[in-house]
Amino acid sequence: MKKIPFLKKTNPVLDKSEQELGLSRKSNANQKRLIFDDGNFNVRRTGINPLNIASPFHWLITSSWTYFFAIVLGSYFMVNLFFTVLYYLVGVDQLAGHLGEDNWGKFLEAFFFSAQTLTTVGYGRISPAGLASNVIATFETLIGLLGFAVGTGIMYGRFSRPNANIIFSKNALIAPYKDGMSFQFRTANGRNNQLIEVEIQISFSWMDLENNKRQFNALKLETSKINFYPLNWTVVHVIDENTPLFGWSEEELKQRDVEVLVLFKAFDDVFSQTVHTRFSYKYHEIIWGAKFKPMFYVEENSQTILELDKASDYELTPLYSSID
Amino acid sequence: MKKIPFLKKTNPVLDKSEQELGLSRKSNANQKRLIFDDGNFNVRRTGINPLNIASPFHWLITSSWTYFFAIVLGSYFMVNLFFTVLYYLVGVDQLAGHLGEDNWGKFLEAFFFSAQTLTTVGYGRISPAGLASNVIATFETLIGLLGFAVGTGIMYGRFSRPNANIIFSKNALIAPYKDGMSFQFRTANGRNNQLIEVEIQISFSWMDLENNKRQFNALKLETSKINFYPLNWTVVHVIDENTPLFGWSEEELKQRDVEVLVLFKAFDDVFSQTVHTRFSYKYHEIIWGAKFKPMFYVEENSQTILELDKASDYELTPLYSSID
Amino acid sequence: MKKIPFLKKTNPVLDKSEQELGLSRKSNANQKRLIFDDGNFNVRRTGINPLNIASPFHWLITSSWTYFFAIVLGSYFMVNLFFTVLYYLVGVDQLAGHLGEDNWGKFLEAFFFSAQTLTTVGYGRISPAGLASNVIATFETLIGLLGFAVGTGIMYGRFSRPNANIIFSKNALIAPYKDGMSFQFRTANGRNNQLIEVEIQISFSWMDLENNKRQFNALKLETSKINFYPLNWTVVHVIDENTPLFGWSEEELKQRDVEVLVLFKAFDDVFSQTVHTRFSYKYHEIIWGAKFKPMFYVEENSQTILELDKASDYELTPLYSSID
Amino acid sequence: MKKIPFLKKTNPVLDKSEQELGLSRKSNANQKRLIFDDGNFNVRRTGINPLNIASPFHWLITSSWTYFFAIVLGSYFMVNLFFTVLYYLVGVDQLAGHLGEDNWGKFLEAFFFSAQTLTTVGYGRISPAGLASNVIATFETLIGLLGFAVGTGIMYGRFSRPNANIIFSKNALIAPYKDGMSFQFRTANGRNNQLIEVEIQISFSWMDLENNKRQFNALKLETSKINFYPLNWTVVHVIDENTPLFGWSEEELKQRDVEVLVLFKAFDDVFSQTVHTRFSYKYHEIIWGAKFKPMFYVEENSQTILELDKASDYELTPLYSSID
Repeated sequence: MKKIPFLKKTNPVLDKSEQELGLSRKSNANQKRLIFDDGNFNVRRTGINPLNIASPFHWLITSSWTYFFAIVLGSYFMVNLFFTVLYYLVGVDQLAGHLGEDNWGKFLEAFFFSAQTLTTVGYGRISPAGLASNVIATFETLIGLLGFAVGTGIMYGRFSRPNANIIFSKNALIAPYKDGMSFQFRTANGRNNQLIEVEIQISFSWMDLENNKRQFNALKLETSKINFYPLNWTVVHVIDENTPLFGWSEEELKQRDVEVLVLFKAFDDVFSQTVHTRFSYKYHEIIWGAKFKPMFYVEENSQTILELDKASDYELTPLYSSID
Repeated sequence: MKKIPFLKKTNPVLDKSEQELGLSRKSNANQKRLIFDDGNFNVRRTGINPLNIASPFHWLITSSWTYFFAIVLGSYFMVNLFFTVLYYLVGVDQLAGHLGEDNWGKFLEAFFFSAQTLTTVGYGRISPAGLASNVIATFETLIGLLGFAVGTGIMYGRFSRPNANIIFSKNALIAPYKDGMSFQFRTANGRNNQLIEVEIQISFSWMDLENNKRQFNALKLETSKINFYPLNWTVVHVIDENTPLFGWSEEELKQRDVEVLVLFKAFDDVFSQTVHTRFSYKYHEIIWGAKFKPMFYVEENSQTILELDKASDYELTPLYSSID
Repeated sequence: MKKIPFLKKTNPVLDKSEQELGLSRKSNANQKRLIFDDGNFNVRRTGINPLNIASPFHWLITSSWTYFFAIVLGSYFMVNLFFTVLYYLVGVDQLAGHLGEDNWGKFLEAFFFSAQTLTTVGYGRISPAGLASNVIATFETLIGLLGFAVGTGIMYGRFSRPNANIIFSKNALIAPYKDGMSFQFRTANGRNNQLIEVEIQISFSWMDLENNKRQFNALKLETSKINFYPLNWTVVHVIDENTPLFGWSEEELKQRDVEVLVLFKAFDDVFSQTVHTRFSYKYHEIIWGAKFKPMFYVEENSQTILELDKASDYELTPLYSSID
Repeated sequence: MKKIPFLKKTNPVLDKSEQELGLSRKSNANQKRLIFDDGNFNVRRTGINPLNIASPFHWLITSSWTYFFAIVLGSYFMVNLFFTVLYYLVGVDQLAGHLGEDNWGKFLEAFFFSAQTLTTVGYGRISPAGLASNVIATFETLIGLLGFAVGTGIMYGRFSRPNANIIFSKNALIAPYKDGMSFQFRTANGRNNQLIEVEIQISFSWMDLENNKRQFNALKLETSKINFYPLNWTVVHVIDENTPLFGWSEEELKQRDVEVLVLFKAFDDVFSQTVHTRFSYKYHEIIWGAKFKPMFYVEENSQTILELDKASDYELTPLYSSID
C-alpha cells in the first residue's frame, strides 16, 4: 500500500464561516478541550457580580435533584423557623390548644403550628387565638402558597425540560469513502421518543502553527439534516480539496491540537420543543483508518432492533487502496 | 386502452435526499411496515439500561389516562402506607384524637391521618401531639405538596400537549394528472382549531431488488406548504421522469415492497406550538387508477360544509387515455 | 382626467402559490366571506363524532371567561353532589361533629363536609369517623387535588396564551403609487408590548367568471417582513402586470366577489412565542382612490405619539394623473 | 496623516430593507433616541381604551417584583375583606367557635376565618355552622383555589420567562479594518448558560437633511450568525461604497442625528426558547478611531477566562495610514 500523495495546502483559503464560532483565534495551543462531555464550554466568566452571572431559575432548573431537594428542605426549615420565632416573640399563649409546658416545648409547638400553617394543612389542634398570632398566620399562609407556587413551577420546569439522550460514538473515524477518505462519527437517539427534523453542524478547531493562532472552520457534511431519526445516523464529512484537513496525517492532527465541535439540534415530538446537544472529538479520539460495524438488524417478525451499546463499535480498515 | 410504454429506469440516479431518512438501506425486504398507524417506527432499542431509554416524563405525558390514573392512585396509596407505618412505629398514641381501639383500628386511624396530612386537608380530629409524630407530619406535608406539584405539572403537560387530529385518506391513489399520472393522498384537519403554515414532506421507501438493498427517496410535491388549512388538502406528487416510481406497474409496487412515509407539520394557533404527525401508505393501500370524490359543498347561507367522513372516498378512473 | 388604458389580461398565468390556500376553486360565487372578523373561516366540519372535532383543552382555553367560570362552578357543584350522595348513603353518622337534625340537615352537612374535603380546607368541625366515610374522604381529596391541578393548568393556559391585539385599518385602499397604483392597508400593534420579526402574507381570492371557479393567488408585497414594529406598518402590494387584479375597475372587484386574506405573524417578546392573526378585506371594504392620513406625530420632548384611533383614517385622492 | 478623500455619495441608492423598521421617515430630526436602554421604543400609544393597550398578563409578567407582591398582597386583603363583610352581614354567630366579644372582635374573627378559608388552611377552631356561612365558605374556598391557581401561573410565568443578560460594549467604534474602516461593537453573554444560534441584525437611522426625512437602512454584517457563543462576539460592519455612512466624518454623524439599532436573537438552551434583546448606539456613543482591547485570556490549566467588565474597553488608534 502506498499513501496517495495529497498536496499539502500551504495557504488555505478559509471561508467566512470560520468565524462562526465566536471564539477568538488568539487562544493558547495548550488548551486541552473546548467542549466538555456535558456540553459546556471550558470558559469561566469574571468581572461582574456573580449573582448577575447566574440566573436563579437557570440554576434551580439545571441543578441535580439532590441539590434541589436540599434547597427545598432548607428553605422550608428556615422560613418555618422565622415564623416560629415571630410566634414565640408575640407569645405562644396566643396559640390556643398548644401543649408546650416549658420554653422548649412551647417553641416546638410554635414550630409545628408554623409548619401546619405554611403548608395549609392546618389541623387546628393548635390555632391562632390572638390578634398578633392571627395576623402572622394570615401572612404566613400567603407566603406558603406563594412559595409552593414557585416550587410547583420549578418542579414542572425541571420535569418538562426537554433533555435529549443522544448517543455519540466514543470515537470519530477517518474512514474510506469512495476513492478518498472521510471524517465520520455516529449518533443515535438513546430514547424511545421520536426526534424529527434533526440537524447537525460541525466546526473544526485547530492551531495554525505558522501564525500561532487557533483557527475555526465549518466542515460541510454530506447530509446535514434528516427528517426522521428512527435508527442511527452516520455523519460524514468528505475530505477533499475544499476542507482544511485535506492531506493531513494522523501526526498532524495531534500537532495541530485538533478538536471537532458538534452541534446537534432536533425537534422533540413529546415536548413540542427544539432540543440541542453539544459534543466534541479531540485528536486522540479520532481513529485513523477504521469503519463502523453495523448496529442494527431486522428480526424475523420484521421489527428492526437497534443495538445502542454498539454505537461506538468499529473495525480497522486500510485507508488507501494499494496502488502498486 | 393501452398503457403508454414508459421507459423503465435501469439505473436511477438518486439524489442526496435519499439518505435523509437516516435509515440504512441494508434492511430486510420482508419488513412489513416502517411506520405504524400511531406514527411510531417499527424499531426496538436494546443494549442500554431500559431506564435510560425511557424518560419518565415522556412516559407520564404520553401514556393512556387509565394508566396515568392507576399510577397516581398507586403512588398515593404507597406513599400513604409508608408514612402510616412510620406513625405506627413511633406509636399511634402520639396522634391525639384517634379512635382506634385495637391494633388494626389504630393502623387505620394512622392511615387516614396520613392521607389527611399528605393532601393537606388536615381535619384535625386526629392531630400529631408528640415530637416524633409532629416531625413526621411536618415532613409528610412537604412531600405531599411536592408530589402534587409534580402531579399538577404532569396534568398540565398532558392537557396542553398539542395533539393534532389530522385525517389522512385510508388509501393513496395513482390518479390521472394532466397528460400523465400522479401519486395522491388527501388530508384534512379533524379539529375546529386553526392550523397554519402547514408543511408536508414525503419519503419513498422501496427494495432495490438488483442490489437487495432498501432505498429511500424524497418525493417532490406539487405544493409542499400552505398558509391556511380550512378545508381539505390533496397532496400531489407528479410521476414523471424525475421520480423513482416512474414507469412502475401496480405489480412492481408490491414486488418492491413500497411504503410512502409522510411527515406532516403545522402551527397550532391555540397552543402556539408546532405540531407534527407521521403516517405511511404501504403498497396494498395504494389504489391504481382512481381519483378522490369531493368532500365539501357550499350551503345556501354560503357556509362551506367539510364532510370529514368522506376524506377517503374515491372512484375508479382510467389512468391512460385510449390511444388506438 | 383619463383612465390609463391598462390591458385586461385575458389569460392570467397564475403561479404555483395560488394553490397555497388549500381551498378548492370549485366553491360558490355567492359565498359571502371566507374569513370572519374573529379570524375564523366560514367552514363547518361534519361527518365524525363532534367530540373528536373539538379538543376539550382547545375549548377550555379559548372559550369566554363567563362560560369558563360556569363550567368550573358547575363541575365543582356536581362532583361535590356526587360525594355528598356517597356520604349520605354510608350514613351521615360516620361524620363526627355534624349538626344535621333531620334528613335535609344531614344532607346539607354532608354536602358542606364534602366541599371542605374536595377543596382541602378541612376545618374539622365535621370529620370522617368511620371506615367508609374515611375511605371516601381519602379518595375525594385526591380527586379534589387532581381537579384543581387541571384547573390551575387551564387558568395558566388561558392567561399565558399570547393574544396579539393587532389593529387593521377598516378599509383597504387602492392608492396611487409612483406612476401607477397599489393595494394598501395599514396595521399597528394595539398593545404596548414589543412585537418583532413581523411577517405578513396576503392571498387574493376572486371568482373566475369564465370558468365559474374561485381562484386564489398569493399577492407579492413590497415589504413582507420587518424587524421592529414600534409604529404603524402600511402594507403595500404594487398593482402591475404581474398581479391578477391588474387593470380591473372598481366594478370588476365586485363582480368577481373579491376578498383579500391576510395572515399576520410576529414574535411576542413577553410570551416568547409566535403570534398569528388572520384578517380579510371584502371588495366593499376596498376604497378606490384614497390614501392613508398620518397616524403619529413627534412631541416636543421628542417622544413619538401613535394615534391608534386614526389607523383607518384616509382621504380621497385621484388615482391617475390627468393626461390631457 | 491625511484623510483618504472618500467620495461623498450625493444620491445614495437605498435598498428595500430600509423600510424594514416600520418607522415612517417623516419624523422629527430633534428626536433624541429611538430605543431606550431597556430595549423599549420611545413611542406612546393613544386613541383607544388604555385597558385594551395593556394586557394584564403582559403587565403582571413584566412588572417589578415589588409591584407584583404589592398587587398580590392587596388582592389578598381586598378579597378577604369582601368575604369578611359577607360573613358579618349574615351574622358572625353562624361561625362556631369564634371568640369575638364586641363588634370589632367579631369582625376580626370573621376576617381571620375568611383568610383561613381563602387559603384552605382551615384550622377549624372557627368553622361555618349555619347554611349561609357554609354557602359563603364553600364559594370562598373555590375563589381561593382559582385565585392561587392564577398566582401560581403568573409566578411560573415570571420565573420561566427567558431573560437574557447580554452585555453590549458602552460604545460602538469606528475601527480600522484591512485597508479601510468598519463600524464595530462588542457583545458577550453575561450569564453562564449556553446561548446558541445567535443572530444580530442592525438598522441604521439617520436624518436625510436635504429632504428633511429620517431614513432607515439595514447594515450588512461581516458575520450575522454564530452557532456557539462561549466568549465575546465583536460585530463588524465594513464601511465601503455599499453602505450609507460611507465617507461621513465624525461631525456628519452628529449633524445627521445617527442612531444604530441592534436586534439580538438567540436560543436559550435551558429555557428551550428564543431570546431577543434590543440595543442602540447614538452618534455620541460612537468613538471615532478606536479598537477593542482583548477581554479574555487562557489560564495555565487551559481554561479560558472571559472578563465581562472589560467588554467596553477600547484604545484609540489612527484610522488612516499615513500616506505621505
